[in-house]
Parts: sequence; C-alpha cells; structure tokens
Amino acid sequence: MLYHVSMHISIPDSVAPARVEEIKAAEKERAAEIQRAGKWPHLWRVTGQYANISIFNVESHDELHALLSSLPLFPFMSVTVTPLAQHPSAI
Amino acid sequence: MLYHVSMHISIPDSVAPARVEEIKAAEKERAAEIQRAGKWPHLWRVTGQYANISIFNVESHDELHALLSSLPLFPFMSVTVTPLAQHPSAI
Amino acid sequence: MLYHVSMHISIPDSVAPARVEEIKAAEKERAAEIQRAGKWPHLWRVTGQYANISIFNVESHDELHALLSSLPLFPFMSVTVTPLAQHPSAI
Amino acid sequence: MLYHVSMHISIPDSVAPARVEEIKAAEKERAAEIQRAGKWPHLWRVTGQYANISIFNVESHDELHALLSSLPLFPFMSVTVTPLAQHPSAI
Amino acid sequence: MLYHVSMHISIPDSVAPARVEEIKAAEKERAAEIQRAGKWPHLWRVTGQYANISIFNVESHDELHALLSSLPLFPFMSVTVTPLAQHPSAI
Amino acid sequence: MLYHVSMHISIPDSVAPARVEEIKAAEKERAAEIQRAGKWPHLWRVTGQYANISIFNVESHDELHALLSSLPLFPFMSVTVTPLAQHPSAI
Amino acid sequence: MLYHVSMHISIPDSVAPARVEEIKAAEKERAAEIQRAGKWPHLWRVTGQYANISIFNVESHDELHALLSSLPLFPFMSVTVTPLAQHPSAI
Amino acid sequence: MLYHVSMHISIPDSVAPARVEEIKAAEKERAAEIQRAGKWPHLWRVTGQYANISIFNVESHDELHALLSSLPLFPFMSVTVTPLAQHPSAI
Amino acid sequence: MLYHVSMHISIPDSVAPARVEEIKAAEKERAAEIQRAGKWPHLWRVTGQYANISIFNVESHDELHALLSSLPLFPFMSVTVTPLAQHPSAI
Amino acid sequence: MLYHVSMHISIPDSVAPARVEEIKAAEKERAAEIQRAGKWPHLWRVTGQYANISIFNVESHDELHALLSSLPLFPFMSVTVTPLAQHPSAI
Repeated sequence: MLYHVSMHISIPDSVAPARVEEIKAAEKERAAEIQRAGKWPHLWRVTGQYANISIFNVESHDELHALLSSLPLFPFMSVTVTPLAQHPSAI
Repeated sequence: MLYHVSMHISIPDSVAPARVEEIKAAEKERAAEIQRAGKWPHLWRVTGQYANISIFNVESHDELHALLSSLPLFPFMSVTVTPLAQHPSAI
Repeated sequence: MLYHVSMHISIPDSVAPARVEEIKAAEKERAAEIQRAGKWPHLWRVTGQYANISIFNVESHDELHALLSSLPLFPFMSVTVTPLAQHPSAI
Repeated sequence: MLYHVSMHISIPDSVAPARVEEIKAAEKERAAEIQRAGKWPHLWRVTGQYANISIFNVESHDELHALLSSLPLFPFMSVTVTPLAQHPSAI
Repeated sequence: MLYHVSMHISIPDSVAPARVEEIKAAEKERAAEIQRAGKWPHLWRVTGQYANISIFNVESHDELHALLSSLPLFPFMSVTVTPLAQHPSAI
Repeated sequence: MLYHVSMHISIPDSVAPARVEEIKAAEKERAAEIQRAGKWPHLWRVTGQYANISIFNVESHDELHALLSSLPLFPFMSVTVTPLAQHPSAI
Repeated sequence: MLYHVSMHISIPDSVAPARVEEIKAAEKERAAEIQRAGKWPHLWRVTGQYANISIFNVESHDELHALLSSLPLFPFMSVTVTPLAQHPSAI
Repeated sequence: MLYHVSMHISIPDSVAPARVEEIKAAEKERAAEIQRAGKWPHLWRVTGQYANISIFNVESHDELHALLSSLPLFPFMSVTVTPLAQHPSAI
Repeated sequence: MLYHVSMHISIPDSVAPARVEEIKAAEKERAAEIQRAGKWPHLWRVTGQYANISIFNVESHDELHALLSSLPLFPFMSVTVTPLAQHPSAI
Repeated sequence: MLYHVSMHISIPDSVAPARVEEIKAAEKERAAEIQRAGKWPHLWRVTGQYANISIFNVESHDELHALLSSLPLFPFMSVTVTPLAQHPSAI
C-alpha cells in the first residue's frame, strides 16, 4: 500500500555540530537500507527546504511507523502521513 | 523536472448534474492523454477526499501551467504546486 | 488496519429539504450496512457539531476510500483520514 | 462519558536523555494503570508522529483533567479534548 | 458539568428574509426555555460579531448535543465546545 | 464590563523548578486577591490543558491590562481578550 | 475607551446590484453620522482590499456593538475587535 | 515605491459565462494600460492557480488602491499587499 | 503616508534579566524620539498582550523599515505592516 | 525559469553574536556572487521584517536548491518557493 509522507526537519542548534553530522550519516545509511528493501520507492527534496516528500510502499500502518521511527532524524522531524488510494483516472 | 501537485476539487451544486458528468468524462480523457504523453507519471487518490496528489514531469513552469489549466475540472480546483529537487539520500 | 476518520458535513441550503431527508435516510442505512460488516467499529457524534469521528477497520486504503465514497453524504463531507498504528503503551 | 483526546508530545532536547527515559518509563506504567481501571479504553499511535489519539471513558471533565495531568509526560504535551456524544446512526 | 460553547452564525442570503425572522424568533424562545431550565447560565454577545460565547451546565455530552441541535439556528451555526474543569486557583 | 480572557501558559524548561514553584504560588495568591476584589468572577480550567478561560468584570481596558500584567505567570502566557456585550436573548 | 476594529466586507453576488448601491449609500451616511458624533475617530482603507481598519472611542462594549450592528453593511462583514489600552511608551 | 501584490481570483459560477468573458477582456485591457504607464513592472502567473504575483511601482498607498480597485476583476479578488524596502544585500 | 504596524514581542528567557531591562529602557527612549519627530502618531497597547498596534506616518517603505529596525526590541519582534489608504467614507 | 522565493530568517539567541556577524558577512558576499551571476535578479526587503522576497532565474529546481542551500543563513531560514509562469496579460 502507498503512503505519502512529508518530513520537515529542524535540528535545534543546542545539538553539537559533530553529533549532527553523525546523525545525518546514520540517516543516509538507514534511508538507503529502506529504499533497497523496496519500501521507499520515492524520496524527493522539497526545493528550498530541509524537508522531503516521500512515497512509502508497505503492508501496514505499523510497518510504516516502525520504519519512520527507526530513522535517526525522526526525533527532529515533523511528519504528515497521507494514505494514497488508486485513482480512477490513473492509467 | 518533477513537480508535486495537489488538487482538491469542489464543484458547486449549482452546476447541473448532467453537466458535471460531462466535465468528469472530459477530465478522465484529458488526464489519460497527458499521462500517455509521459508528463504525468503519478496520479494518486487522497483516501477519503475528492482530491489527488500527482507528480508531473515537464520542462518548465509554463508547460505545467498549460497542462493543469487545460484540465476540464481546473475551474473547480484548488491547486498547490511544489517543485521537487534531487534528494541527496535517494538511491 | 485501523483508520481514524473525521467527517464534517455541510449541505448547501440550495438542496431541497425533501432531497436532504432522502439522502440522510440513505446515509443511515448505508452506515448501518458498513457497521454490520464489521468495517466501522466506532461512530461517535462530535458534541455540538454536524460532524462525526469514526474508527474504520479495513484491509487497505482503497477499501476505505470505496466505503467512504459510497456514503450518500460523501459529496457534502470534508474528511480527514489518519492511519492508526499500535501504541507501545496500549495494554 | 466518552472523550476523544489527542496528545502530541515534544520533549525539548535540554532535558537529559536519562531523565527522558525515566519519564517515559513512568508514563508507560501510569498509562497501564489508567487503562486497567477501564478509564482509557482506546490508545492508538498516530502513524509517523510522536502522538496518540485516545478515547477516555470517565464520569466528568474534572476526572479527565486529573487523569491527564497525572501523566508524567503531561508537561511536554499539547492536548486537544473533544467530547463525544451518541451518534444517531451508530448501531 | 460546565461546557464553554462558542457559536458563530452565518445565514446564507438565499434564505428568505421572512423565514429568517421566523427562525430568529423561534431561536429566542428556545434559548429562553433552556436558560429558565438552568442549563444555560451564561450567554454573552461577542462584541462586533453575529456570535455568542455561552456556558452550559448539563449532565452529559449527549444532553448538551440535544440542547444545541434543538436550536432553530443550529443548521447555520459553527460551534466549538470546550469542556471546563475546576481551576485550582478559583476561590 | 465583561471581558472573556483565555490564557495558555508555557514555562520554558530552562526556568529552574524551584523558581517555577515560587511563581505558581505567587500566581495563586494574586489570582485570589483579584477574585476577592470581584474583578475576576469566573476562572475555569480548560480540560486537558495548562490553560484557563476566565471572565473579568472591570471598568476599562487599562484596568484589565494592569490586572493581567500583574500576574506572576504573565510573561509565560499567551492571552486572547474578547470583549463581551449584552446578548439580546439572555434572560 | 479605544477599540481597534477591522472590517472585511464580502457581498454575495446574489444581492441585486441596485440593492448593493442602496446599502453602500446608507452605509456612507451612517458612517458619517457616527464619525460626527466623535465615536469613530479613525477610519482607514486597507490598501488593495474591500476592508477597513478603524478606531472607535466609546463608553462600553455594548455601545460599540450597537454602533457596529447598526451599519447597513454589518450583515456582510467579518469583524475583529481588539480593545486598546494605554501604552507605557506613548508620549 | 515598490509593492508586492498577490491576487487570487475566484468568480462564482452564478456569474453568466458571457459576462465573465467580458470582464476578463476588460481586465486584460486595463492591465495593459497600467503596465504601459510603468506602474506595474512585473506580472507573473502563479503556476497551477488562477492567481498572480505582481510588483507595482507607484507613489503612494492611495495610488495603489486606486489602480487595484479599478481592475474589472477586483470584486472577485482576494488581495494581499506587502510594501517592499531596499535590501542591504541587493547589488 | 500611513502604515498600520502590529508588533508582538517575545524575549527568550535566555537573555539575562539585567540585559532585558537595558533593552527596554533604550526602547522607550527610541520610541519617544520617533514619536517626537511626528513619525509615530499612534502607539496603543493590545490589552492583555506584550504587543502594540501603531500607526506610522512616513514618506516611504524604506524610512519605515529604517525606523522599525532601529528599535532595540526589533530582534525580538514579530511585525506585520499594512499600508493604509484614504477611506471614501472617512469625513 | 522564474521562481518566487520568500525567506524569513530567525537566528536563535544561543548563537554567539560574533558568530552571527560572521555568518551575515558571508551571506552578503554569497548573495552578491549569485546576483552577479544573473541568477537572482530581484531581492527586496519585506518592510518591518527580517525577511526578503526574491525572484530567482535558474534552469532547474536542483539549481535553485543548490543556490539556496549554499547561503550561510540557510539553516536559519524558513523558505517558501513558488514557481512563476508567464501571465497572459503581461505585456
């Protein structure tokens, strides 16, 4: 099933720069893992923002929540999830 | 170039039902045309709403506007366009 | 899978009163059908509003959209759908 | 009486990690207590967010406020309470 | 139990003026009835708006919803209900 | 004259806990003073929130501002003031 | 006492043009009356909008509401009232 | 002086189609006039919307309001005006 | 030319109290200077808030920005500027 | 292609003043570079705010994102990007 997920990231400046780089590296690795598993078919950058719009393809809400909350940047994210259905005009 | 487009549709009830069906049929046809041209790679239904989330792949803002404003339902749409850039973590 | 669905209903006064009563009767019947099928385990009235908060239990986004858009009042609804996952503190 | 309660949690990063774990453990325990008392029949995770949607079943607003403000995470919560009435179409 | 209720009223101009006056007269009468029954201890006009802020004192959400939906102007109202608890600093 | 005042309180966690307790005690005392003076006839807790809805009865905007800004928690408050007029249907 | 009042006007196009002109003429006359009475010291046009920002100087909320609701355009207005107090830095 | 002006246009469907075309033609002509007078240096279409973002260069707020309210589509516009100052980093 | 300016002030508690008093004293002085120069004819306190509504009378957007950004509290302000035009009904 | 970009800047006061001045100087330099390259034809100050409205002229969303995220102040910005198309009434 497809889920539209928007993620806006805001890391408070009280987090040490070195720590931020660590988290970002871990995020990149984890994101690649999930994409390779075929669960995260689309990941786009929102132009001009530290945010992305993604499409996830998973079996259930629980699986989606497990994947999202496993992302190292999750504590710094504001996330909106929109379930996507088949559109009658999609060919 | 990729554009994320959300379209919420609201047809006032003062439009005659027969006319509504005509417009919807024309919309379905026009949407198929644009998709076959490869310009509209993704068209999803927002679950529970008379709305869609789409991804368009076109050469310019002008081309996108021309395509969107050519849709029969355009006068009844509230549209948001978000330009999408390449994400550094997308594999 | 559980979906939290809020439905706010607004019927423009240009719809003839008799027609409104017809639609409401059909709505009540259809709602009962879906509830008897076990798909709509909770349906509550938002106190003071012509709105409800519901919990649906269905297999997919598509099934939810099919059920919601089959409701006679659907054209007059503003709907928000929130997918619900298992809470770690739920006993 | 039923109350629909949404709780969004945001713990500032100035709270020491160890302290956060303490609070979360106490929260889990307190939540189980209230659920076992039959006051908190539904507790769902909002997919993708550090938030829940709950249904409380208590005798009065005061009882609900006492329960909510007794939660260790209460100081970090943004809460919305919606009183739920019987829906005429609920079977 | 106390409920804070705000009611904003908007009557579309398609409703005949005579009909509007009828509804307003019936509203005034019904409001007086509910107040005399001690259920509606406070009814204030929001300065500058066709809106009121009220305090209701009733036994349950269902009773409140029954009273509100019995008001002739209810179909033209946008209502917000906030349950009020005892304040620790109230003397 | 009556004023509807809503106060949402948010104390940043950088304020030492002991200092917070001091301020809260002073707040409770000052609130009792103003209520005893008959200026603050209603003070209710918004169920589930660190917020209150109050009715003040004072002679002028300046008097209201002086009272509100004299509250020890004032620097941590987000306040909305709505002047209330006599409602034509109030008995 | 001073009140800051913003008025946004929206006349549905179902009101006959001749009737609109009548209402506007009556509005202009009534506005002049209130200004001559010294109650409406400032009336400014919000640049680019069919809206104004005004300062009223009256004795009470009731008087303000009576004046505002006496304006012929009142039924088409969306009004916000903000009570103004003396500023400590005003010379 | 420069003003940033955004105009969102919504023509109710109760306005006869022929009348709409008349207004649009008059709008195009008036817009060209103002642009030729050098008052309206930039006029851009918001991609995907019946809206524009413009830059006006006029001597005063009054002149801007006169120009905007002279546009045939003005009654159907929702307009936001933002005064623009010189930016210290503009070369 | 007249500008309506609303200023909401929020000083983070990480700024030392002594420093806050210094800034406030400098603000009061600077505000008096600008008012004496006739540029700031109206300065009102929004009742119940650390905010003001002001009317500035200056020659250009640049002059207004220079004055506002010269205020010691400017870094802690959230400001909205609305250009005011002559109202046709103002006498 | 033209992009309308609004940038609101908020630098938390935990960033040392000296560091802020460094970043601002680097920002000014980088902005001049991009403008000289013809990519940033318009940069205006929003009167009264630490914000700007800009027009960028670049070949793609990716190029725009690269330019924006290269700005030293980017981590402190809240950015909105609106793609601009040719307006049919622009002469």
